Amino acid sequence: MIIVMSKSATDADVKAVVERLKSIGCEAHVSVGQYRTVIGAVGDRETIRQLPWEAMPGVERAVPVMKPFKFVSRDFQPEDTVIEVRGVTIGGGTFTTIAGPCAVESRDQLFRTAEAVKRAGASILRGDAFKPRTSPYSFQGLGEKGLEILAEAREEFDLPFVAEVLDPRDVELVSSYADIIRIGTRNMANFTLLTEVGRQPKPVMLKRGFTATIEEWLNAAEYVYKEGNQQIILAERGIRTFETASRNTLDITAVPLLKSMSHLPVLVDPSHAGGKRELVAPLARAAVAAGADAIMVDVHPTPDTALVDGAQALLPSEFVEMMESIRAIAEALGISI
Amino acid sequence: MIIVMSKSATDADVKAVVERLKSIGCEAHVSVGQYRTVIGAVGDRETIRQLPWEAMPGVERAVPVMKPFKFVSRDFQPEDTVIEVRGVTIGGGTFTTIAGPCAVESRDQLFRTAEAVKRAGASILRGDAFKPRTSPYSFQGLGEKGLEILAEAREEFDLPFVAEVLDPRDVELVSSYADIIRIGTRNMANFTLLTEVGRQPKPVMLKRGFTATIEEWLNAAEYVYKEGNQQIILAERGIRTFETASRNTLDITAVPLLKSMSHLPVLVDPSHAGGKRELVAPLARAAVAAGADAIMVDVHPTPDTALVDGAQALLPSEFVEMMESIRAIAEALGISI
Amino acid sequence: MIIVMSKSATDADVKAVVERLKSIGCEAHVSVGQYRTVIGAVGDRETIRQLPWEAMPGVERAVPVMKPFKFVSRDFQPEDTVIEVRGVTIGGGTFTTIAGPCAVESRDQLFRTAEAVKRAGASILRGDAFKPRTSPYSFQGLGEKGLEILAEAREEFDLPFVAEVLDPRDVELVSSYADIIRIGTRNMANFTLLTEVGRQPKPVMLKRGFTATIEEWLNAAEYVYKEGNQQIILAERGIRTFETASRNTLDITAVPLLKSMSHLPVLVDPSHAGGKRELVAPLARAAVAAGADAIMVDVHPTPDTALVDGAQALLPSEFVEMMESIRAIAEALGISI
Amino acid sequence: MIIVMSKSATDADVKAVVERLKSIGCEAHVSVGQYRTVIGAVGDRETIRQLPWEAMPGVERAVPVMKPFKFVSRDFQPEDTVIEVRGVTIGGGTFTTIAGPCAVESRDQLFRTAEAVKRAGASILRGDAFKPRTSPYSFQGLGEKGLEILAEAREEFDLPFVAEVLDPRDVELVSSYADIIRIGTRNMANFTLLTEVGRQPKPVMLKRGFTATIEEWLNAAEYVYKEGNQQIILAERGIRTFETASRNTLDITAVPLLKSMSHLPVLVDPSHAGGKRELVAPLARAAVAAGADAIMVDVHPTPDTALVDGAQALLPSEFVEMMESIRAIAEALGISI
Repeated sequence: MIIVMSKSATDADVKAVVERLKSIGCEAHVSVGQYRTVIGAVGDRETIRQLPWEAMPGVERAVPVMKPFKFVSRDFQPEDTVIEVRGVTIGGGTFTTIAGPCAVESRDQLFRTAEAVKRAGASILRGDAFKPRTSPYSFQGLGEKGLEILAEAREEFDLPFVAEVLDPRDVELVSSYADIIRIGTRNMANFTLLTEVGRQPKPVMLKRGFTATIEEWLNAAEYVYKEGNQQIILAERGIRTFETASRNTLDITAVPLLKSMSHLPVLVDPSHAGGKRELVAPLARAAVAAGADAIMVDVHPTPDTALVDGAQALLPSEFVEMMESIRAIAEALGISI
Repeated sequence: MIIVMSKSATDADVKAVVERLKSIGCEAHVSVGQYRTVIGAVGDRETIRQLPWEAMPGVERAVPVMKPFKFVSRDFQPEDTVIEVRGVTIGGGTFTTIAGPCAVESRDQLFRTAEAVKRAGASILRGDAFKPRTSPYSFQGLGEKGLEILAEAREEFDLPFVAEVLDPRDVELVSSYADIIRIGTRNMANFTLLTEVGRQPKPVMLKRGFTATIEEWLNAAEYVYKEGNQQIILAERGIRTFETASRNTLDITAVPLLKSMSHLPVLVDPSHAGGKRELVAPLARAAVAAGADAIMVDVHPTPDTALVDGAQALLPSEFVEMMESIRAIAEALGISI
Repeated sequence: MIIVMSKSATDADVKAVVERLKSIGCEAHVSVGQYRTVIGAVGDRETIRQLPWEAMPGVERAVPVMKPFKFVSRDFQPEDTVIEVRGVTIGGGTFTTIAGPCAVESRDQLFRTAEAVKRAGASILRGDAFKPRTSPYSFQGLGEKGLEILAEAREEFDLPFVAEVLDPRDVELVSSYADIIRIGTRNMANFTLLTEVGRQPKPVMLKRGFTATIEEWLNAAEYVYKEGNQQIILAERGIRTFETASRNTLDITAVPLLKSMSHLPVLVDPSHAGGKRELVAPLARAAVAAGADAIMVDVHPTPDTALVDGAQALLPSEFVEMMESIRAIAEALGISI
Repeated sequence: MIIVMSKSATDADVKAVVERLKSIGCEAHVSVGQYRTVIGAVGDRETIRQLPWEAMPGVERAVPVMKPFKFVSRDFQPEDTVIEVRGVTIGGGTFTTIAGPCAVESRDQLFRTAEAVKRAGASILRGDAFKPRTSPYSFQGLGEKGLEILAEAREEFDLPFVAEVLDPRDVELVSSYADIIRIGTRNMANFTLLTEVGRQPKPVMLKRGFTATIEEWLNAAEYVYKEGNQQIILAERGIRTFETASRNTLDITAVPLLKSMSHLPVLVDPSHAGGKRELVAPLARAAVAAGADAIMVDVHPTPDTALVDGAQALLPSEFVEMMESIRAIAEALGISI
């Protein structure tokens, strides 16, 4: 921690900060400049971080030197985390495609989609049974019935599946069906839910809050990790900005940033990022080119009757086309797919 | 709903939209312009809103005419909602001050604060027993013990209190102690939690998600309202913007906007908005001047030892001073305090 | 400057930074922590700031301790700057109201407005002759003819006036007519224009770029100041955020922040911030309550025929009402108006 | 234009809007819904757009159906605009790389860079003689001397060059040297400058304002186009968001959006977007994969002595490596480079 004193700080103010650092077993390195005195605090980072330095008299600001997360950082584990579900790998130099409808609406809808995406090369199925909806009057998902249909589709098409959980009381249920549990964007900072999914054994896909910084996102991953679950996939799905021409702004820069800051695999969701069908393939191509480990894509056999997010779902035929260009880029870059 | 067709839309595309509207019992008003055809959909708004119009061929975009919320709007209820807790009123032309520490740390800390804020004119106490923290390594609150201390302070100082709930499984517990239950900024779109607090009898203070639009916020209030709980306080506490000189950007404009869009009382939290002690009083003054019904202010007897958010807590003496200027403005504007 | 080395920085990397600091006549204070080494650079701030520290091997980031502006800071001049134009004062504990139409459309329109705002208590007139418009097909202002009409109104109603300049080639012209020259939000970082207005003698009203940080804004003021013009008014007019319910988000927090960071007077423009007539009075009240030195308000005799920004213009009668509440708050807070 | 009346609008309010539309030669299509009346305005779009509909009594909001720009839209010109400078093509299915130092610092620095980027496959040189700097104390460029050096390098290495202009009074000068004139991000809405570059004959590279929407950006392009200059390159360089881990947030979604909305070529600047050397190659790869027509990359022989933006400049050897992966992706997607 670097503690910057204000111009008007007195010697007593500086001394008080130094004494306080010593009282918690830390060293204080004082640099006196022409306009400001700066104190470098050296010692246990959690101890230092917890104290309200900016509330002390004469302190202008306190600048953390270390990030607040630990286990999920590359500093802690230099090698990539590689996740395996039923023989499918995510991370570690491969490229994986997850596809399916946003929400499970019926057995027929899911099976038609699963068959199509499997044939086109997807290796994991998506489909939600619980949907968080901005309006209380929108379709909220089929619940456990949806999970049963997903489990059936898994057997039929040999596709492990990922499904979202919204409520800490449903974690056990969703975990008993799904191969990967997803935390949605609105729940990224739902620390109660993060703690619960950290205690169950299935890998966790952690979507970025649409207004979360990368640092906050990695803090959320730390919540899961410190409960004992180390199998976490970071899923970028677009952030909220002033631009309204697309549903969200895909933060493609997050991909290389995360790959250098963390050992966890990074996925891109081009469907929720763009929010429009015609944007999905270009964004998916950008994802593989920027170094993502996986993508997750909405596909629906009849988007214009979809109960959720129809405007962004690809038709199966469009998905086939997208997969061809993804494969071409991966091969050109020497990534196994 | 207004459905704008793209320039390249065919007559068949227009016809398909019109037919679909008719099939759900709605009228379609078609306006053919030089460059675009526009279809006005008239009928039940929920039925129209649920369908994925933008996924239909030839549709450029669909513009909703009505807001998605209903019960919380002024259209639905023209008179102000007024909330009463143990004789204290929020809304309806009065101005109410809530104050106390961000988190309950000990009986001594809470009692010293409660006594001070009561004497200075606060009529409700704040203090949390459960804290959502960005880092898993930060202090997470005293839990039920904190609620017990708050309940004791209520008796001692005749101050009803507000406390946050984080977990749907704790709603019953917090509701059994607190006079007002608070949903924090990170949980504004936690629909599971919204539904639970909507089913218990205590008034709900709903903080704005720091990246939620006003429309999303009112949708969240609608979740609570439609479960049967109509006593909702909307609490503006700053939004996330590009500006980092303050912790958040207080959206003071939200105050008059909400007063015209909704009948619910509007509170401003100047402490979490500014994040720095010296900003609290000016922002509190702005709140009363802009027409807010209440403010909620962090006060701590020794901010430089606070376990949470010390930098933004007022000293009791600073709180006294702030209250004087608040009172002066309220009187000047004819608001009873 | 604080230079934070990366975890993988070598001793040679640290040494290279230290040597470079010495080579430019600065001291280097090295703190070795468990995970990171931090180097405090002490010496001439401009010399240090100019070098690309983050491009040196092993450097993770460089954190400036000092702000990049100097003359406009409170550190440099503790007393308030007070500006006088034709007997009207801005800054130094008074409250000043500027009002008038967004654009000068005709002699009649301007004179009707000027008479009304004068009578209601405004002491400076606004009205633009050059308008920057997002669309090239919108009304661009009357040009010099507009300035002539403004000058006539000044004589008729004894109201000094402020007008915008867009083009460095027009600075001399506008300066020869107007009492205060305004730099609009889109030109806040137009350094060419800033330099030109810094060289002419009239006070400069510098609007905040709608996406500029407070630090960037003060840097822009520094451009004007260092050319010799010390009479600068900082005008907050709302920033761009994700919220679209108001035209912009008024950053009311900027008022107390600026008053502590800078000695320059601070004005709020509630009309451009809110963008809707009914928001103007509440935002103006918030401005005076938060400590602004002045407001600038759009008034138009017939807003529904206005060529620019009619939706946000107050009718003269609404302006009268607003002035009453502004006066009441100012009096309650002991501010002379 | 769609005019949505408020719930409380009277029949007289509706009639007034209808009458006003008729008075300007337009048709009004009135749809009466249960809660709102909606009026579709059909007629000349510029005439309709100019009037302050939202200032009329009873009007809740006015929703434009058409975009405000015309000439730069795909609607107006379905075929791609292709730009040629000294035999180098931008747009129309090819991929072009522009590279060089951010600022020209000396003949030696520029020549070393030009030689290196030419050898690695760049076909246009970048380098600025006039630099807009946030702080008035930063290096502002070599001025005309810089342009002379660029012109020499053009001859020596057979590389046309692009350079920025800041001041309308310098347009003639820069245009007399450079092959492409650049409008920087801070000047995107400097309408004076846009008009001047629209009147000179060299192609214009128009950087997106870092807080401009895509619609505002296309409006800025329209300013240039309507003066007669149709050779415009749109350059995405990152937007300002809440995320601070990268310098800006590259809006990669803007690439496919622009390709569908406009016929102008689209360039990505991965250097200014990311702001860090290690992000440049991944973002450049994302650009070509997402469908950009060109990239522009900062390269410097010794970034740690660069006078501007050293932290984001690639070393020549890093540029060579980046070009290899760009070429591989372009080939995989069938794009000629």
